[in-house]
This record gives sequence, C-alpha cells and structure tokens, in this order.
Amino acid sequence: MHLRLQPASPEPRTVQSAFCPRYQFAIELLGRRWVGAILRVLVAAPARFNEILAAIPGLSDRLLTERLRELEREGIVTRNVSADRPVRVTYGLTECGHSLDAIVVAIGDWAERWVEVE
Amino acid sequence: MHLRLQPASPEPRTVQSAFCPRYQFAIELLGRRWVGAILRVLVAAPARFNEILAAIPGLSDRLLTERLRELEREGIVTRNVSADRPVRVTYGLTECGHSLDAIVVAIGDWAERWVEVE
Repeated sequence: MHLRLQPASPEPRTVQSAFCPRYQFAIELLGRRWVGAILRVLVAAPARFNEILAAIPGLSDRLLTERLRELEREGIVTRNVSADRPVRVTYGLTECGHSLDAIVVAIGDWAERWVEVE
Repeated sequence: MHLRLQPASPEPRTVQSAFCPRYQFAIELLGRRWVGAILRVLVAAPARFNEILAAIPGLSDRLLTERLRELEREGIVTRNVSADRPVRVTYGLTECGHSLDAIVVAIGDWAERWVEVE
C-alpha cells in the first residue's frame, strides 16, 4: 500500500460499512505517534526542523527526523532548501499533504468541542 | 483527559500551530489500533458484535471486546439491549460518536483519492 503521487480520477463513493484497506492505511498514518501533531503544525505554515520540534512538547529530535523522513517518502511532506545563503531548510506539505488540511481542522474542532482537559 | 458527556459551549478557534492536548487525544483515539475501522462500521449503522467482527478482517474477538469497552467508557459507543426476546445486543454511536461521522467519511474520501493498493 502506498500513496499516489498524482490524485486518482474520482471513484464512486464506497459503502462505508465495507472494510477498506485504503481507509485503514490512512487512519493508521494519521494516528501514528506524532504524525497528527506534525501535520497540525505544517497545515498552518511550512516550518523549520527546530520550529516543529519546539511546537510539540515531548517529541525528540530523533523521532521528528524519523517521522519527517517517513512523511517525505509517502509524499505528504516536502523538504525545501532555499537557494540563498545561509541555506534555510523548511518542511511543508505537498498537494497530497494539504488535502488533509480539512481533516486536521475537523479533528481539532471535534476535540475542542468534546475533549475536556482535567 | 476525557471526553465530555455534553458538548461544550463554542470556543474561539485555536491557532492551529499551537500544540493542543485535546487534538492530540482525539487523533490518538482515532489512530488507536482498530478504532478507525470500528467507527467506520458504526457510522453506517448500529451493528451486533459478530457483524462488526465479520466486517473487519484480522480483528480478534478479544480485541473487539476491549475496544468496544474503551469506546463505551469514553462515551463514543453505546450498547443497546433490546427489550424483547430473544435479547438482541447492538452497538451504536452516541451523539459524541456521531459527531465523528464527517471526519470518518473525509478520511475515507482522502484515502480513496490518494492511497493506492498494490
């Protein structure tokens, strides 16, 4: 199972009750440790490695590196290196990554409404 | 961190780049092994234990029991026992659970568009 680099042509909506390996892949991707938090940062704007790290308490340097590499491999995150000096490296979302924006915002809204911090 | 039984009054939208423990809780809940698949079945309609089990290949009896109990405790799933005989037990979504419908559908649509099965 992998992510397409190009969007597929629209397909008829599948029956929601049928098990769907694609849905399973997507929800496990979103739920992978730290991925949701990283996406939430990048939905707002591209960011440097240290900015992402600072925005997510508890996330280690090593794990952020690992997650960003995975997300790059999956075509969700893109690494941009500026042409000018000093070189500035930022991470942003690809088209595929940005198509998760509405989902990230909707999960945030749901959490705002239903999850209580004690 | 827990789920509210009643929806909170609307709050101003938080800045998406700020780390949000509520969002983190929600996305980890959705990404918890099998939870996404169980919700997808229940978004369509309430179902009996064996119907849910049959709809999700690879899910064991023991893990479905465990996940349903967790989701009940969190106020997302409700267990309904029919008044007539033979007793029929079904699992459905609460109001809080149904407020995830659009998210479950949106993740399915995203997966349909972007995830390719090899």
